[in-house]
Amino acid sequence: MSEPDPTRRRTITGFSNPTVKFVRSLRDKKHRRAERKFLAEGLRLLTDARASGRLPEMLLMATGRDPHPLIAELETAVLDAGGEVVEMYAAILAKVTGKDNPQAVAGVFAEFDTALSAIERSVAPIWLVAQALRDPGNLGTMLRTGDAVGAGGLILIDDCADPFSAEAVRASMGAIFTQRIAQARWEDFLPWLRGGAGQLVAASLRDAVPYRAAPYAAPCFLLVGNESRGLPAAYEAECDLRVTMPMLGRADSLNAAVAAAVLAYEALAALG
Amino acid sequence: MSEPDPTRRRTITGFSNPTVKFVRSLRDKKHRRAERKFLAEGLRLLTDARASGRLPEMLLMATGRDPHPLIAELETAVLDAGGEVVEMYAAILAKVTGKDNPQAVAGVFAEFDTALSAIERSVAPIWLVAQALRDPGNLGTMLRTGDAVGAGGLILIDDCADPFSAEAVRASMGAIFTQRIAQARWEDFLPWLRGGAGQLVAASLRDAVPYRAAPYAAPCFLLVGNESRGLPAAYEAECDLRVTMPMLGRADSLNAAVAAAVLAYEALAALG
Repeated sequence: MSEPDPTRRRTITGFSNPTVKFVRSLRDKKHRRAERKFLAEGLRLLTDARASGRLPEMLLMATGRDPHPLIAELETAVLDAGGEVVEMYAAILAKVTGKDNPQAVAGVFAEFDTALSAIERSVAPIWLVAQALRDPGNLGTMLRTGDAVGAGGLILIDDCADPFSAEAVRASMGAIFTQRIAQARWEDFLPWLRGGAGQLVAASLRDAVPYRAAPYAAPCFLLVGNESRGLPAAYEAECDLRVTMPMLGRADSLNAAVAAAVLAYEALAALG
Repeated sequence: MSEPDPTRRRTITGFSNPTVKFVRSLRDKKHRRAERKFLAEGLRLLTDARASGRLPEMLLMATGRDPHPLIAELETAVLDAGGEVVEMYAAILAKVTGKDNPQAVAGVFAEFDTALSAIERSVAPIWLVAQALRDPGNLGTMLRTGDAVGAGGLILIDDCADPFSAEAVRASMGAIFTQRIAQARWEDFLPWLRGGAGQLVAASLRDAVPYRAAPYAAPCFLLVGNESRGLPAAYEAECDLRVTMPMLGRADSLNAAVAAAVLAYEALAALG
């Protein structure tokens, strides 16, 4: 381990610094896409990332923060890995993260490979699949649930919200770093799925069996649809299994992340 | 049924109208509390409310909206019940609701009685209980889940987010009108609970049994804690049953609304 390059540790004192503008731009999806980088905030999240083998390319910290052994370890790890450590006034960090009360650290991470071809389906019995989910909080919550049930990851079909948005990253509670993430169009996903083992399961009201004790089989791909419209009928028709949860009240559907979780825990009980 | 009073139907053409200011103020919790009224938006929500026996005291509509038989029925019902029908330019309605793209109708409702003493526990086998939940979206999602599992309602313990906030009402998908809602301090809730039949169940990591096939008993009160801190240990200690869900990944907890839903569906399978 060589001595870290001191030029990769610097302090920013001005709001108009290009690094401030760059990091700030990552709050915008268009810039995230162009740069293929995203922002994660908070010591807990960055510590989870490191434990999952992910280090930020750039570690951002407020000057005048309280010393913390985990922050010190993060600094060393980031510098050792060739990354940058950037300190800035708390007011500048607040501008960067867009939060009034910024947490003392944040990190700029390279986005992961989200090609379907990067997914090795045999590593886990359960995979979550979201179709046209528009709420980044729901995506983050699905990642968090996926981590809990030992899922392999989350596959995003059609036009979903951005899993690398600040809201999704926050809601994932660190699972953004442990769950594999792939994005694909349905017409690419289906041939990929059928090119190997895999049971496609939809939460559905059409031609469905009760979700309790349904014949789940690994690797089991649990598909939930858009918050307003649900799954297209043609997608449901392609599923190997359609399951339904009791709906005893006036509503005819659950929140998408809730439906995914109830299904995922049921599949886990069957397959785990 | 008498002829509706024509003075209770009017059109507002100015942004500075007192009614506009009044309705707009309901976006603020302090004013909601003082007035004991709340705002619900969208034809679906208002139709659900009516089906649940709840009519707005004031029905707000954009002028120039497309005619709709359900809106016409709502108008008649509100006027028959002694309420007001207020039309306004779409731009004014947008200001009132705080949304760029306002739905064509909204309603001002009287808040329900949220005293614990208004709860008749024997009407349902499951009740959801939230302790210090801070995210109104989580509260709304719990209401929606409660409706789905046939729960009696949602009891809010200690300082929770406001279930009558726009975000909670929206996330409830109409369940704000079907689920009973009570608010209480823990020191008032516990004696009330112990004053009758009722099993208090916590999602917990401490001294807990697996949530699958745990000995749930009706009426079953499913308690979930604050998003960051979970339940206070002293509250967990008061529970009749502590159950735990598998956590196979790095995270040690689920999203609060997800945990409530996984537990609620398990209790429903046992008690339903």
